[in-house]
Amino acid sequence: MLLTERLMAGERVFSAWSSVPDSLNAEGLAATPFDAVCLDMQHGAHHEDSVMRCLGPIIASGKPGLVRVPVDRFDMAARALDFGAQAVIAPMVNSVADARAFAQSMKYPPVGKRSWGPHLAMGRSGFSGPQSAWLDEANRKTLAFAMIETREALDAVDEILAVAGIDGVFVGPSDFSIALTDGKAVDPSLESMMEAIAHISARAQAVGKHAGIYVVDPKLVQRYSAMGYRLFALGNEQN
Amino acid sequence: MLLTERLMAGERVFSAWSSVPDSLNAEGLAATPFDAVCLDMQHGAHHEDSVMRCLGPIIASGKPGLVRVPVDRFDMAARALDFGAQAVIAPMVNSVADARAFAQSMKYPPVGKRSWGPHLAMGRSGFSGPQSAWLDEANRKTLAFAMIETREALDAVDEILAVAGIDGVFVGPSDFSIALTDGKAVDPSLESMMEAIAHISARAQAVGKHAGIYVVDPKLVQRYSAMGYRLFALGNEQN
Amino acid sequence: MLLTERLMAGERVFSAWSSVPDSLNAEGLAATPFDAVCLDMQHGAHHEDSVMRCLGPIIASGKPGLVRVPVDRFDMAARALDFGAQAVIAPMVNSVADARAFAQSMKYPPVGKRSWGPHLAMGRSGFSGPQSAWLDEANRKTLAFAMIETREALDAVDEILAVAGIDGVFVGPSDFSIALTDGKAVDPSLESMMEAIAHISARAQAVGKHAGIYVVDPKLVQRYSAMGYRLFALGNEQN
Amino acid sequence: MLLTERLMAGERVFSAWSSVPDSLNAEGLAATPFDAVCLDMQHGAHHEDSVMRCLGPIIASGKPGLVRVPVDRFDMAARALDFGAQAVIAPMVNSVADARAFAQSMKYPPVGKRSWGPHLAMGRSGFSGPQSAWLDEANRKTLAFAMIETREALDAVDEILAVAGIDGVFVGPSDFSIALTDGKAVDPSLESMMEAIAHISARAQAVGKHAGIYVVDPKLVQRYSAMGYRLFALGNEQN
Amino acid sequence: MLLTERLMAGERVFSAWSSVPDSLNAEGLAATPFDAVCLDMQHGAHHEDSVMRCLGPIIASGKPGLVRVPVDRFDMAARALDFGAQAVIAPMVNSVADARAFAQSMKYPPVGKRSWGPHLAMGRSGFSGPQSAWLDEANRKTLAFAMIETREALDAVDEILAVAGIDGVFVGPSDFSIALTDGKAVDPSLESMMEAIAHISARAQAVGKHAGIYVVDPKLVQRYSAMGYRLFALGNEQN
Amino acid sequence: MLLTERLMAGERVFSAWSSVPDSLNAEGLAATPFDAVCLDMQHGAHHEDSVMRCLGPIIASGKPGLVRVPVDRFDMAARALDFGAQAVIAPMVNSVADARAFAQSMKYPPVGKRSWGPHLAMGRSGFSGPQSAWLDEANRKTLAFAMIETREALDAVDEILAVAGIDGVFVGPSDFSIALTDGKAVDPSLESMMEAIAHISARAQAVGKHAGIYVVDPKLVQRYSAMGYRLFALGNEQN
Ligand SMILES: [Mg+2]
Ligand SMILES: [Mg+2]
Ligand SMILES: [Mg+2]
Ligand SMILES: [Mg+2]
Ligand SMILES: [Mg+2]
Ligand SMILES: [Mg+2]
Repeated sequence: MLLTERLMAGERVFSAWSSVPDSLNAEGLAATPFDAVCLDMQHGAHHEDSVMRCLGPIIASGKPGLVRVPVDRFDMAARALDFGAQAVIAPMVNSVADARAFAQSMKYPPVGKRSWGPHLAMGRSGFSGPQSAWLDEANRKTLAFAMIETREALDAVDEILAVAGIDGVFVGPSDFSIALTDGKAVDPSLESMMEAIAHISARAQAVGKHAGIYVVDPKLVQRYSAMGYRLFALGNEQN
Repeated sequence: MLLTERLMAGERVFSAWSSVPDSLNAEGLAATPFDAVCLDMQHGAHHEDSVMRCLGPIIASGKPGLVRVPVDRFDMAARALDFGAQAVIAPMVNSVADARAFAQSMKYPPVGKRSWGPHLAMGRSGFSGPQSAWLDEANRKTLAFAMIETREALDAVDEILAVAGIDGVFVGPSDFSIALTDGKAVDPSLESMMEAIAHISARAQAVGKHAGIYVVDPKLVQRYSAMGYRLFALGNEQN
Repeated sequence: MLLTERLMAGERVFSAWSSVPDSLNAEGLAATPFDAVCLDMQHGAHHEDSVMRCLGPIIASGKPGLVRVPVDRFDMAARALDFGAQAVIAPMVNSVADARAFAQSMKYPPVGKRSWGPHLAMGRSGFSGPQSAWLDEANRKTLAFAMIETREALDAVDEILAVAGIDGVFVGPSDFSIALTDGKAVDPSLESMMEAIAHISARAQAVGKHAGIYVVDPKLVQRYSAMGYRLFALGNEQN
Repeated sequence: MLLTERLMAGERVFSAWSSVPDSLNAEGLAATPFDAVCLDMQHGAHHEDSVMRCLGPIIASGKPGLVRVPVDRFDMAARALDFGAQAVIAPMVNSVADARAFAQSMKYPPVGKRSWGPHLAMGRSGFSGPQSAWLDEANRKTLAFAMIETREALDAVDEILAVAGIDGVFVGPSDFSIALTDGKAVDPSLESMMEAIAHISARAQAVGKHAGIYVVDPKLVQRYSAMGYRLFALGNEQN
Repeated sequence: MLLTERLMAGERVFSAWSSVPDSLNAEGLAATPFDAVCLDMQHGAHHEDSVMRCLGPIIASGKPGLVRVPVDRFDMAARALDFGAQAVIAPMVNSVADARAFAQSMKYPPVGKRSWGPHLAMGRSGFSGPQSAWLDEANRKTLAFAMIETREALDAVDEILAVAGIDGVFVGPSDFSIALTDGKAVDPSLESMMEAIAHISARAQAVGKHAGIYVVDPKLVQRYSAMGYRLFALGNEQN
Repeated sequence: MLLTERLMAGERVFSAWSSVPDSLNAEGLAATPFDAVCLDMQHGAHHEDSVMRCLGPIIASGKPGLVRVPVDRFDMAARALDFGAQAVIAPMVNSVADARAFAQSMKYPPVGKRSWGPHLAMGRSGFSGPQSAWLDEANRKTLAFAMIETREALDAVDEILAVAGIDGVFVGPSDFSIALTDGKAVDPSLESMMEAIAHISARAQAVGKHAGIYVVDPKLVQRYSAMGYRLFALGNEQN
């Protein structure tokens, strides 16, 4: 079942978070009970080549592969999809302009400006139909998650969610805590930001889009879940 | 003979298209009858390191190495030249602004803003003269190909061709077919876009610049050739 | 002693310049008498993975690791810090806008917009305190050097130096010579630009910021030193 | 279906022959119509790491992975099995002593002396039963092919085939032609050695073991097949 | 403190067991509370290059690096020492001849036949004295552990321990269980082999040599410890 | 001109010595004035893959590539030739048996037992004739150097030189000094071994074979040269 289908069905999806750019690690993570594996290029050590190689065993395991790209690396967002990722998480989407640039890299025309070349993704998925059939489904089957992790992003969350091609939002609680404390502290469990975190999910639900969050403290899963979050990234290296 | 010289002489140049980022593959491709080898970083799996390593055996074989960079990765365009590429193909050059940014990364002052550091390219070419002699020739010897593959690009083709430092245009027929069908189909042999394809080459010829095209169906080479295309990229993985 | 502390104390710091992206080379360079090692991603062959791997042995040697990123690759500037670099050198910072974009990638709020995730840097430094303690110190302990190597940059040097988060300037004499000769020559020892080079350092000193320079001819170290330069990058491959 | 099962059923199995040590090539070969993929460490460029990484996508494709090890590298024969190979081809098995050493590395006690540690193979196969169940099946499910490619080997073929743990023989026609011409020529289609090639297969069939052969000229497949050969390796780089 | 010194002092040493050949994993393992890290080339995926690269961060962390080589790969035993390993574990040392071959690769003359070239090890240890001083200490500072994991080895344990240059024995309980059950089962906790395991340690203690063991079930540490074992390798991938 | 031709003509050949397994280093070394480049797998960090990749740029530069394999790794000697090396240096050839095993791996029948598969070497050399023509020349064009660096080897030097397929001897002065001082010192310039060093070369000259030596102190080149040595390996990392 595709990630989009699981999320559409209201299922909770728990993704492992990979920071070491070695395909054997990815192969190992894909064999754990996690529902998915996310390769982190922003704060983790993944790079152009490791994303290509690590998505192979993840896809072969039948689980969705996700990729978090570095800030503004929308060239890589499109490449991650070409390599077979089902979702891309873009950090620091702080404005409608950021969201549009991200969406344009992720979606084929007329929604966006993604360029054609998903041959590796097609091969890895076992697809052998006509290319236009793949094109017809691609925008629906791959997900663009915009990270909400600053005050500007919080203020613009409705507009960001309204951008065609943005499929969901994803909260980065460490950066969000830095933002909300004006750089004074980093505390991904900061109680005073819980209301804002709930608000973000509520706004996504209101427009039928997805909400995900990076989970530093597993005890919070239940609380985030009650807020409407469905995609949870767990790990111990990055936020 | 340099790529620019062959194209200036009106010769047809057939380039292999490499998607696997391994220098042994590049070494093998350079030993085939193809005239040149293009390393694809946009939809192929080439990356910063593979481009550096694969250009070595290509140059050693006496053939030109080309690199297609990802969308907007003009940092990599300049680096490809530093590693010894004779041409860079930039995808999705949809406006004069795109063309200028590309040209500026590719050409030394006063034409552009390329930064000095071509030591690997000099070494690989066997150059041992004074650095200023290399500088004097570099803008002429390396080629910037802007991909024309959207309606916007088609509309702006004359202005794009007029940008100083843009040496030619390169058609991506798969993306072009998506654009011209408003996202409904991908068909690199779409008959209804042949007139536009002919137009692009004609405009390039009119200003003494080059026209190249990605060839999905080898039977089209003759037809493209008659339109004035001289650089043909063949392969079976990307468009 | 941190690089910032050595420079603050007025010490001269000599950095080796690494162009080959292999961690064993970095390990070897770190064992030479050089005070620091700079990994060059602009004209050298370093890449995302090599920077991550090469900073390990450099940091383990007790010496600062520096990284020169490609033009406009501010995503990589932040990643270099996450991997443990003490300084990033950004080429072609030609305007206040360039300087601001660079500074924002390098500094945590409220100075900039750097995103949290320095786990590798913390581990490599041996840090084990609370994360907020690291956050509190990070902006001070890591240095952003803006390269001044064009006429525009020279004209804007005061404004660039005034940008919050820019810790110093770094002169690229080869590009500077191309700029000052309008593309006619490349000569990193060009006598006619010495006054401008002296001016750049003087302006930095005037505002209590650092000045560094790439040294092609070691005989110039004494002269640059007298101008106030304290960070010297030596090597034989790039400028 | 396992390779051993297909061969036991009398099926003909055609294996691609991989010489480039890149997992993306292996992934591509596994997607072709070939029944299996063999990674060549003797004359191809495969190495310890590439075998580990390339077996992943081959196994994921549902096809058997084979590995040809270098001469006398029985350490690697066992490792190839640990990584998930279904068969190992050992070159230059010229004596009973060679065959015994090979078999001992390939089979667990009491047949041989293979050491326990097939965790990667178990994971890649999806096995999750008790370890002793895997042990119980392993000697049967993995195949040891001894290459017969010298006069000594030809003379000893019955004794080699009689060694417990040797599952089959595999003819290297290029080396065999050099041997039979006393070093005067290399000709994998040498007519005068066809009788010996037929003899080798006949002796294998006589004791219920398998016969395979490297095929330089595909036209010979039919003829080899008539002799009883069932495993055919095709490729254009090695013999 | 060197591994030999800790063991000589009767300390218990717990070593992590690394199977993924990536230097970032090794760097991470070295940062855990484990006393040492062992890189497994026999059943793990480590190889010549990964051992060289992974020993760097392990040594930099101040902890001993150990390497388990594949069966009979004594060339690699010497190379592991050249790269800075403090101990090598050789599997399947089943006879005095095996032990002698192993010891000869590990010890400089007159004890063995190890060849000179420890430049990387010297550099990584911070050694800067005269080479002869290193030579004088090397045989004492690096440890050769012979794995005892078959009946033959058990029978020959006294003779193996008597070989000059063998510093200790190391039990592989999975293989040992296969051996003692004549290939019928693999059970690293097999009760019926505990007496033999105790015997091995007792014989080592009797001649002042070390005893180590691979620990599949951590609950057994206390029991092994009471038998005299001091080096414990823990992990979940290999035996 | 081939290495064998230069040595046959009595020329002195100076080879760089590479310890870092990165093809860009090899490319750089090949561009220095050295006559050849030797890749060291024994004490340097070269491995199976680096030898394959580094020989490419060395051969492309028109210079001979040499490889020193680890002790007893004759599988790798043959592979180095398959990758295009012109000579292999085998360490610790201490007996006629060692010399024979080495020669057999290096020479095609009837001299030795080398297996056919030099496709990469043929491609890299530009050879396009019939395979039998290559076979006919190969034994003559590639050189086997046996290292003489122990007392046993010194005593057996005439017999070693008499082995068919051994093309020369190569002295390792550091190990030789350890051997001659019974493990008490390592001193590659040890005066008391000069007579033995001269003897080795004299014996080689007496039978028309080559003599090479590792040079730690360049001042000794003249002296070694006077003794008849013609192949000199220089470097600062290994002996
Ligand atoms: Mg964040
Ligand atoms: Mg396109
Ligand atoms: Mg510059
Ligand atoms: Mg053969
Ligand atoms: Mg074992
Ligand atoms: Mg030696």
